[in-house]
Amino acid sequence: MLTLYYAPHTCALASHIALEEAGATYETVRLSFKTDDQKKPDYLKINPKARVPSLVTDRGIITETPALLIYIAQTFPAAELAPLDDPYRLAKVQAFNSYLCSTVHVAHAHRMRGIRWADEPEAHLAMQRKVPQAVGDCFALIERETFEGPWVLGSDYTVCDAYLFTLSQWLAGDGVDINSTPKIAEHFRRVGDRPAVRRAVEAETRELKSAA
Amino acid sequence: MLTLYYAPHTCALASHIALEEAGATYETVRLSFKTDDQKKPDYLKINPKARVPSLVTDRGIITETPALLIYIAQTFPAAELAPLDDPYRLAKVQAFNSYLCSTVHVAHAHRMRGIRWADEPEAHLAMQRKVPQAVGDCFALIERETFEGPWVLGSDYTVCDAYLFTLSQWLAGDGVDINSTPKIAEHFRRVGDRPAVRRAVEAETRELKSAA
Repeated sequence: MLTLYYAPHTCALASHIALEEAGATYETVRLSFKTDDQKKPDYLKINPKARVPSLVTDRGIITETPALLIYIAQTFPAAELAPLDDPYRLAKVQAFNSYLCSTVHVAHAHRMRGIRWADEPEAHLAMQRKVPQAVGDCFALIERETFEGPWVLGSDYTVCDAYLFTLSQWLAGDGVDINSTPKIAEHFRRVGDRPAVRRAVEAETRELKSAA
Repeated sequence: MLTLYYAPHTCALASHIALEEAGATYETVRLSFKTDDQKKPDYLKINPKARVPSLVTDRGIITETPALLIYIAQTFPAAELAPLDDPYRLAKVQAFNSYLCSTVHVAHAHRMRGIRWADEPEAHLAMQRKVPQAVGDCFALIERETFEGPWVLGSDYTVCDAYLFTLSQWLAGDGVDINSTPKIAEHFRRVGDRPAVRRAVEAETRELKSAA
């Protein structure tokens, strides 16, 4: 059995979607960042980085979105969520996911996690002011240089689409108009209409309401 | 033929080492960040993100260290640089690489790349002040929670070792005493003694001297 630890409105949604796309049997455990659940001792035993997602498997615990996405693709090959046997195409998947985690997510995180990189409140405000430009530049680059269409990497839906969808959700809050990248805006709507994506989003919303 | 675009003192060294460990036939092209080679039009055609590494292959160009590392491991399987056929162990490799690129490298980058995340010089100084703590916390976590020994992921040398070695090189400049993490300090010396690592490091040093 797989157990996904997630928090609402986080990048864990990408792995949640991938599990749904894969037809996996899994459970979810919801954490609330508002009550700092991710820093509580029981969770630190699962993920000492105090982050989500974490996926508990029969063999041990996996963290970090790019790792979970390839693990899910590899564990459920029938779902064809990544070109696992083509090193070049798989590298394209990995490069996209790596850019999202190390550049796009990081640009976004400067809006509310500035304490990671500076102590002074003035510096946090300076970071927040830059977020619309930094995040907007990332999405403009994806639109212009990376996005092949109709899916991120061309004709086949992959884990990259779930991950881009997840980060696209944050654009409005980051002060970026998704319509300034029309291909990504259309992609966001199209991914959001997939049954697996609807199930993952609704499950997180439902658990959020029942916890309120 | 493979061509690796790198700049000295960057994370591209991890891929350079992996190519040497794999026994690959490849060429290198050196960029200088001091003269902003990575922002020149010819290079932006190769990598519009203006970053290194980039690996030019017969089929196209691959960017992002975690993608290159798995690509090299998959293309040269005899070198056994990653547990490619074991989804759980491969996920451990990926999780480690993802933490290095999205958290450790990012913590380090706030020392000299603050312009990515704020416009004000005061904010850049605030970021620089936090680097020793932020980077030190990352390495302490690796030492305490992740490092299995004798290699990063246990008994087998993997691409994770090349990547950790590369980032360990930056500790002194970041104001972190590598000896505060004794397992990583010993690992750093041991990886540095490997013939493939020596060849990659010496090639980058040699090209640096001949360009001076």
